[in-house]
Amino acid sequence: MDRLSDDAVTTGLRAVNAASPFNVWAGLELGEIGDGTAELRLSAKPEMLNHTGTLHAGMTSALLDTVAGYAAATRAGAVVTVSLNISFLGASAGPVFVARASTVKAGRRQVFVDSRLFALRSEGEEKLLATANVVLMPL
Amino acid sequence: MDRLSDDAVTTGLRAVNAASPFNVWAGLELGEIGDGTAELRLSAKPEMLNHTGTLHAGMTSALLDTVAGYAAATRAGAVVTVSLNISFLGASAGPVFVARASTVKAGRRQVFVDSRLFALRSEGEEKLLATANVVLMPL
Amino acid sequence: MDRLSDDAVTTGLRAVNAASPFNVWAGLELGEIGDGTAELRLSAKPEMLNHTGTLHAGMTSALLDTVAGYAAATRAGAVVTVSLNISFLGASAGPVFVARASTVKAGRRQVFVDSRLFALRSEGEEKLLATANVVLMPL
Amino acid sequence: MDRLSDDAVTTGLRAVNAASPFNVWAGLELGEIGDGTAELRLSAKPEMLNHTGTLHAGMTSALLDTVAGYAAATRAGAVVTVSLNISFLGASAGPVFVARASTVKAGRRQVFVDSRLFALRSEGEEKLLATANVVLMPL
Repeated sequence: MDRLSDDAVTTGLRAVNAASPFNVWAGLELGEIGDGTAELRLSAKPEMLNHTGTLHAGMTSALLDTVAGYAAATRAGAVVTVSLNISFLGASAGPVFVARASTVKAGRRQVFVDSRLFALRSEGEEKLLATANVVLMPL
Repeated sequence: MDRLSDDAVTTGLRAVNAASPFNVWAGLELGEIGDGTAELRLSAKPEMLNHTGTLHAGMTSALLDTVAGYAAATRAGAVVTVSLNISFLGASAGPVFVARASTVKAGRRQVFVDSRLFALRSEGEEKLLATANVVLMPL
Repeated sequence: MDRLSDDAVTTGLRAVNAASPFNVWAGLELGEIGDGTAELRLSAKPEMLNHTGTLHAGMTSALLDTVAGYAAATRAGAVVTVSLNISFLGASAGPVFVARASTVKAGRRQVFVDSRLFALRSEGEEKLLATANVVLMPL
Repeated sequence: MDRLSDDAVTTGLRAVNAASPFNVWAGLELGEIGDGTAELRLSAKPEMLNHTGTLHAGMTSALLDTVAGYAAATRAGAVVTVSLNISFLGASAGPVFVARASTVKAGRRQVFVDSRLFALRSEGEEKLLATANVVLMPL
C-alpha cells in the first residue's frame, strides 16, 4: 500500500483525537507527530488529580498509552494496545504535562513503543515522571 | 502497631476515595474491601470512552491501579504504585465495569497485587477485559 | 482445523522440550499439561545459582516463560513470547522448583498466560517466588 | 556516605560476577561500567539455545536483568530486582550478544533501569533483540 504523507497522518490522528470523548474531555493536544514519534500535551484540570493533589495514575496511563498509539500509527496505521508496562518515577501537580513516544520496532504483527511522561516546570525545565514499554497490534 | 479493623480500613479508604477529585469525577464506588482484597465499580459516562466507543485505556488503568492500591492498603496502610503492567484482553462499551484486586504478597518494602477488570453483562455475567500485575510501596 | 488430543499435545511438547538444548541442559521436566495449563519442574544445579546462592533470575525467567509457552501451546499450537512481565517476590536456594501456568485468554492473535514459580519445601509445602504476566503470539 | 570511585565499583562488580556460578557458567563478560550504565557480553554456547536454534528466553532475561543490576549498582550499591518487564522484538542465533543498561532514576527506595539486548553481526552491526524496564531495590 502507499504510505501516507506525514501531513495526512497528522490530520488523521487529529481527527481520531477529536473523535475520542475522553481525549476531548481531557483536552489532550497533539504536538509534533511523524516518523515513529508523537507528542501529547495536557493542562490538567482539578478533577484529574488524586487525593494527594498530583496527577492521577489513570491520567498518567492515558497519556502514556495514547501517545504510544499515535507514534505507532505513523508506522502501522490503526493499532490497539496489547500490553502496557508503566514505571512510576515521581508525582507532580503539574499543571502542564508532556508525553512523548518513540517507536522501537514496527513489525507486521506487533509494534513496540517507548513512552515517557514529563511535568513542565518553570523556564521549560522538564521532570521525568513515568516511563512505559508499550506493545501494540496493527488492526 | 495495632492493626486496624476491617471496618476502620474501609472507612478510611472511603474517605481517601472521596478526597480524590478524579475518583469523585469518575464516580468510582467501593465494594467489598478487606483481607488483602478490594472491589471497585464504575458506571461509565460518555466522556470515559475512546473513539471506538469502548472504555478508554486510561480509565481501564485507573480502575486497575486504584483497586490495587485499596487492596494493598488493607495490608500495608498508605501505598504508592511503583510499577503497573496491564494486559488488554478485550474492549467493552460497558457501561458497568467491576475491578477486583487480590494481594499476592505484602512485604515490608513492596506489596504485590493482581488486579482484573470485568464488564458486567446481562444477568450478572462478567467478561474479563484486562489483567494487571501491580507493585506498590508502603509509605 | 482439528484439535489435537491432550495426549498428542503432551507428546508434542515433550518432543519440543527434548529438542531445546537449554531445556535439556537445565533438566526441565514436564509435569501435568493440558486444557490451557502446564507444569514444569527443575532440580537446580550449582551453576544455576547467583552470587547469593539462590536461583538466578535468568533461571526464574526461563521457567516462567517456558511453562507459559507450553500452557499456551495446548490452546494455540506453536507460539512465541512477545512480552514477559515478572514480579520477584522472594529468593530461594531450592533446590527443587515448580512452575505452573494457566491460560487467561487464547485469542486468534494473542495468548495471555499467568505463570507462577514456587520453591518446594519440606513435606510438600510450596513458597511462591515469582509471578509473571506473559503475552504470546500464535505462529 | 562516600561514593566509591568508578574503578572500585567496577572491581567490586567483577568480583560479584565471578562469584555468581550462573554467570561463570554462562561466561558473562563485563564491558564498560560506570555513571549509571553497564555493558555485558555473551558468546553463546549450544546449550543456551532453544529448539529453534536461537538464544533461549531465559538467557535473554539473564542478560537484561544482570546488566540492569550492574548499572544500578554504580549508583545505589547492592540491589535486588523487584520487577522485570521484557519486550521480545526478535530472535537470533548470535553467537555473540551484547546487553546494555542505563539508569533512568536512582531513588532511595527504587532504581529504574532500561536494558537492551543486541546480537552482534558482521562488521560490528547490531540487531536489537529485546528491551526491558527493570525496577530494582537498594539493599
